[in-house]
Amino acid sequence: MPLIGKLVVCGVGLIGGSFALALRRAGAVGRVAGIGRSRAPLERALALGVIDEIAAGWADALDGADLVLLAAPVGQMDAIMAAMAPHLRSGTVVTDAGSTKRDVVDAIYRNLDAQLPWVVPAHPIAGAEKSGVEAAFAGLYDKRRVVLTPLPENAPQAVDKVRAAWIACGAAVSATSPQEHDRVFAAVSHLPHLLAFGLVDDLARRPNAELLFSHAAGGFRDFTRIAGSHPEMWRDICLANAGALLAELDQYVAELAQLRALLAAGDGAGLEAVFDNARRARNAWAAGLPIQTAE
Amino acid sequence: MPLIGKLVVCGVGLIGGSFALALRRAGAVGRVAGIGRSRAPLERALALGVIDEIAAGWADALDGADLVLLAAPVGQMDAIMAAMAPHLRSGTVVTDAGSTKRDVVDAIYRNLDAQLPWVVPAHPIAGAEKSGVEAAFAGLYDKRRVVLTPLPENAPQAVDKVRAAWIACGAAVSATSPQEHDRVFAAVSHLPHLLAFGLVDDLARRPNAELLFSHAAGGFRDFTRIAGSHPEMWRDICLANAGALLAELDQYVAELAQLRALLAAGDGAGLEAVFDNARRARNAWAAGLPIQTAE
Repeated sequence: MPLIGKLVVCGVGLIGGSFALALRRAGAVGRVAGIGRSRAPLERALALGVIDEIAAGWADALDGADLVLLAAPVGQMDAIMAAMAPHLRSGTVVTDAGSTKRDVVDAIYRNLDAQLPWVVPAHPIAGAEKSGVEAAFAGLYDKRRVVLTPLPENAPQAVDKVRAAWIACGAAVSATSPQEHDRVFAAVSHLPHLLAFGLVDDLARRPNAELLFSHAAGGFRDFTRIAGSHPEMWRDICLANAGALLAELDQYVAELAQLRALLAAGDGAGLEAVFDNARRARNAWAAGLPIQTAE
Repeated sequence: MPLIGKLVVCGVGLIGGSFALALRRAGAVGRVAGIGRSRAPLERALALGVIDEIAAGWADALDGADLVLLAAPVGQMDAIMAAMAPHLRSGTVVTDAGSTKRDVVDAIYRNLDAQLPWVVPAHPIAGAEKSGVEAAFAGLYDKRRVVLTPLPENAPQAVDKVRAAWIACGAAVSATSPQEHDRVFAAVSHLPHLLAFGLVDDLARRPNAELLFSHAAGGFRDFTRIAGSHPEMWRDICLANAGALLAELDQYVAELAQLRALLAAGDGAGLEAVFDNARRARNAWAAGLPIQTAE
């Protein structure tokens, strides 16, 4: 008997589809039902064998469901939870894959207040520029991190089930508060995405864009890879975490002002110190070592 | 009889070493002499078979030389050219691998005025975070672009020899002015490096740096890869191209100010338009298609 008898995936794209495929790989799921905004992706998911059935609606989807993964853009969470709430039974565990957590937690208290023991917010750290169920694969979560932000009202067995499901997917699971989660990801994920989108947008709007891009090489390719990410998803993330993201953006602009001053003053030693500190930290991180800062 | 009888590489690191190895692979070089600031890298280059001999000095290096590649950080070009000038003979073709070109051209007019027909500035677009001769390999320039910025005084056969050498390395060769070269690379290379160095430096100096980096994932890894680049090399590039880089930095900060305004206003449509334009342009570029901007 598998860990999860019936899994419901709402939003069968890269994230939701890979979750289903990873659980299948682990033999941890019986059958998978898909539900979502539009029919076409569900048909493709069915054809690809990512899901076993397309639910006729939430009543059908939640009938006998053990675990529900909400893998839609965070901007849709409110509407999705409102639609599922009347049909959600105690004991059916609900989790999500939202990249922001304070807004998802707010939506849970607004819409799923009757089932708080069973609703466990989570964030799998496994982005990719590619999106859609065609990009889904069973190994997406191997050795990736999943951050849970459990509610005080959560039942221990509900948290355990979500943790066990992600571990079955190959992920490492940790837990923190929604507030700390959102602050941390504003710095290491949301800001870098905003910066990459901004650079490519700026260059692409120039009259000499073709000339500029024709001279771009490997460094530019890596730096801008996340500018290929899903616009709607990132719009929702930025809006949902605007406060923390604005604070990070302001601090970054202050860093750029310092670099500008060093550059304008021709301060080679100052520039080299910044570059050297960055390289040391980046290489230490990439090697799995502690970050060694200059001070 | 090879294209180049005797090659001299000044600064036998990733760039200079790979140039020698690529020419060997093509059977386009007879023997390779190395010269540089410090002895240790030359000894390693000799042991690795990247060079055949270590020159005792410029007189020895330039004796019978057909082609000289200056592959040292651009900040050293002046001193290097001054040292080689007394020993340089007409007909020995000199080129460089500097990432900036106006400053190299200035150094040529200052130091090699007697040999202007034979000195052809160039920039191979093949960066890498790794540096040093140990990282050198024959395929570094395959399908990469090399931009020449020839002098009006250049002899056609000198330009032809440099072009032929790079083509033998597997590269595609184009030509432009030093001014346009430096403007273009400020936008697509120098600015992204500055931005990546700045972000990692900022995060690494925080009290919670370990926590932040422990949550960083693949997007952060790609975005910050160029922050692992060589600090001295990038210090010199930034100083050498400070004017164009400051202009690009200011335009980028203006783009960030627009994004900040959209974020603060909760303008989801505005953010999505920027992200969508960036994704379209980035994906078009990555696919080798024309950049399609929103306007």
